[in-house]
Amino acid sequence: MIRILLTNDDGIHSDGLIKLEEALREVGDVFVVAPESEMSGASHSLTLARPLRIRQIDERHWTVDGTPTDCVTLALHKILTGELRPHICASGINHGGNLGDDATYSGTVAGALEATILGVPGLAFSLVARENFDFTEAARFAVIAVRKALTEGLPEGTFLNINIPDGPIRGVRVTRQGIKNARPVISEHIDPRGRPYFWIGEEILEWDAAEGTDYWAVQQGFISVTPMRSDLTNHQAIPALASWDLLD
Amino acid sequence: MIRILLTNDDGIHSDGLIKLEEALREVGDVFVVAPESEMSGASHSLTLARPLRIRQIDERHWTVDGTPTDCVTLALHKILTGELRPHICASGINHGGNLGDDATYSGTVAGALEATILGVPGLAFSLVARENFDFTEAARFAVIAVRKALTEGLPEGTFLNINIPDGPIRGVRVTRQGIKNARPVISEHIDPRGRPYFWIGEEILEWDAAEGTDYWAVQQGFISVTPMRSDLTNHQAIPALASWDLLD
Amino acid sequence: MIRILLTNDDGIHSDGLIKLEEALREVGDVFVVAPESEMSGASHSLTLARPLRIRQIDERHWTVDGTPTDCVTLALHKILTGELRPHICASGINHGGNLGDDATYSGTVAGALEATILGVPGLAFSLVARENFDFTEAARFAVIAVRKALTEGLPEGTFLNINIPDGPIRGVRVTRQGIKNARPVISEHIDPRGRPYFWIGEEILEWDAAEGTDYWAVQQGFISVTPMRSDLTNHQAIPALASWDLLD
Amino acid sequence: MIRILLTNDDGIHSDGLIKLEEALREVGDVFVVAPESEMSGASHSLTLARPLRIRQIDERHWTVDGTPTDCVTLALHKILTGELRPHICASGINHGGNLGDDATYSGTVAGALEATILGVPGLAFSLVARENFDFTEAARFAVIAVRKALTEGLPEGTFLNINIPDGPIRGVRVTRQGIKNARPVISEHIDPRGRPYFWIGEEILEWDAAEGTDYWAVQQGFISVTPMRSDLTNHQAIPALASWDLLD
Repeated sequence: MIRILLTNDDGIHSDGLIKLEEALREVGDVFVVAPESEMSGASHSLTLARPLRIRQIDERHWTVDGTPTDCVTLALHKILTGELRPHICASGINHGGNLGDDATYSGTVAGALEATILGVPGLAFSLVARENFDFTEAARFAVIAVRKALTEGLPEGTFLNINIPDGPIRGVRVTRQGIKNARPVISEHIDPRGRPYFWIGEEILEWDAAEGTDYWAVQQGFISVTPMRSDLTNHQAIPALASWDLLD
Repeated sequence: MIRILLTNDDGIHSDGLIKLEEALREVGDVFVVAPESEMSGASHSLTLARPLRIRQIDERHWTVDGTPTDCVTLALHKILTGELRPHICASGINHGGNLGDDATYSGTVAGALEATILGVPGLAFSLVARENFDFTEAARFAVIAVRKALTEGLPEGTFLNINIPDGPIRGVRVTRQGIKNARPVISEHIDPRGRPYFWIGEEILEWDAAEGTDYWAVQQGFISVTPMRSDLTNHQAIPALASWDLLD
Repeated sequence: MIRILLTNDDGIHSDGLIKLEEALREVGDVFVVAPESEMSGASHSLTLARPLRIRQIDERHWTVDGTPTDCVTLALHKILTGELRPHICASGINHGGNLGDDATYSGTVAGALEATILGVPGLAFSLVARENFDFTEAARFAVIAVRKALTEGLPEGTFLNINIPDGPIRGVRVTRQGIKNARPVISEHIDPRGRPYFWIGEEILEWDAAEGTDYWAVQQGFISVTPMRSDLTNHQAIPALASWDLLD
Repeated sequence: MIRILLTNDDGIHSDGLIKLEEALREVGDVFVVAPESEMSGASHSLTLARPLRIRQIDERHWTVDGTPTDCVTLALHKILTGELRPHICASGINHGGNLGDDATYSGTVAGALEATILGVPGLAFSLVARENFDFTEAARFAVIAVRKALTEGLPEGTFLNINIPDGPIRGVRVTRQGIKNARPVISEHIDPRGRPYFWIGEEILEWDAAEGTDYWAVQQGFISVTPMRSDLTNHQAIPALASWDLLD
């Protein structure tokens, strides 16, 4: 029997997680280890400065008071060990897309990344919508993608960042991470005691919709599948840097 | 006059930050916007689920109750705006290395990454030591690297992840991100009320010390300079994925 | 129909809360507004420095990411307003006693106190046990006490701190708050990164078991009912203080 | 040499704390153990669910990432032990009054309460102002009150809740805790991601300004000194409760 680890960054109560769990039950035994509360924007953060608590809800569900990365780490090293070690890890379905640079902020993506680092193939799923989230198509595709990843095997050190458009699906495209031109919008308010506070939001100015990017695929109505790895190196910039005389 | 934004993930009281500030004062006007408390392992996380507070200490120092990414975002959009907009951003000096996959967990690296996304060249500095941190050489090299980045200009969308070895410096190498073979070690304890808690640590099994990697450079006594960008795509895996029939 | 507000400080998932809810359903309509996660030792703290989130689970259950005092405040001013305003508030059942000075640290007690300040009679329930919590007797007595408080009415500004002993119940005693002679025991540990942390525990040296105190009642196998109010004044000390010449 | 422990709930950077420290240096050796960040409304809460960190700034200053009660507990059992054990504890000066029921929410008051429970006489100081805090008179009176408490001794188990009015001081009154008639005002907002959040504020409707209360004293321009203890019992309500037949 196939064992599937499920996590996310919207927390155990998230509708996207529940829908993904329901769908993946037809592929294998699903075990959920997810944040107790919402962790959006958690990125690949790992909780090192404080301890973590694990709460077992039932035989298939646990919460951790930490990030998606914490959940995957504890799942693979404390909860689902030995014979329970999962064959694959699915993260999501996120409420909102993780396209372009946003992938680097995303806890959903980080869940799949951490599984990969720890030797379990990972797939991250995000629904590109802003409200009225209908996870039907995303969950349906998750079943297909997880099955394929199990039978074909993911390339060494590679995980998949999958974004599903809202509305009718025209097909699937394998893409590269695009570039977003956005501007943080910091809203400033005064609390009831007269002190200012700031809330980070964002205004998207434009997308680099070049053919082959994740954004382009979704914009055209395609599901975007981006193979990723944990390497941030800009290999093309190495020669330029090497010409600097850095010990002058 | 050159304006330099300084941040880190060890917090405003960190010795590495103080040493970097002292050193960079000879390059330009230094403005520090750093986390109020330690944020190690914060990765590229952005605080979206709660508001943030800014506390001004004096004309050159502010704290934010958030992550390095929050600090850079608020610095560039609320604190150092208009004529105060910095020419460059330095993050660190981190107490400990950020080599291999660790770069993806690092708040220090994320500070430089966020500055780059927001249009300000970024450099992250980490001292590869475990204790008895002597930041002298690291601070000295930071002056050189920041000056070079200002005069040469960093390639578009590129930031630098710089790791300085402990001990005598043999020179500088431009490197790529290496691969670490590590295992999380979860220590389990019982709190005074009888309930278990878990703390994430790590045991490093081995490093891929192939020539040209960050780890190799540091191991040989060289300062490692890795050009990075925010693209997680595994471009080499695109053809393999494209051959999958994902709509079966 | 009687409407009952239920809260606690062990969080919405606590067994003591679930048992109390089941029992009180025979008295009236029960509405639960409880902390999302555990808040033990929260005392009468009110969250002023940050905003709060309310999550509705179903028509009868809400969580708040704050303290019991926050829960009661939001319940009475945002959730159960107008025709839904509750007639009474029950807090608990706490896992462990709230006897002597411990009442002043207790979030369970604070829930009943806050309800009283806001005009709704409050009762706090705690089971004096350390493990193997059997809430049967405590829940049974809660039904009796809530019914009595509804029919008799609590004295103006008064709430009840009720502690139920573990094991056979000999009867009920109306008591005063006792005095505990305890010593904090601070356990000191080193985290995986080599840095110290401290955990507050406690060693109870002895109890003032004078007749009429809460501790005495529980020790003898009686349920202890202590009428309380929000007045911390030591009235007997006023004359002594008044004789000080404080403007010398 | 007299040793004085100083704490507060506005945090180590608070102006009220700094002014109190400066003033009390003429009475004895002052040691500050205060929260790292603001803890207003912390009440008598004790951090039991997670560990605490102590950061030493210099020979006279430490921060704790917890509440005033945590600070006092760690100060007396980990930091200022043996020959360093303080003779007295001062908490404050709080930015804003702690009158009436507000004393039960106050971290400033709780600091003095905790010291008293742990055997060190405690005094809490609050300046009854809303803005433009001038701590001159409050700090001056703190010196007088601490000296008196050292020479006269506080009654067993008693601590002082001292509120200083803003503006000219007419004298000092020993008072009892008054009654406030207030209404929480919950402001509701929408965050940048479209989700609601709530912030607790307060509207004061009226004060019970009966002669002898803390509020009355301050309203008349007197410093209010209220002797307090940790007993919440409403002794007058015991007979009424005793007449209930609680085992029907």
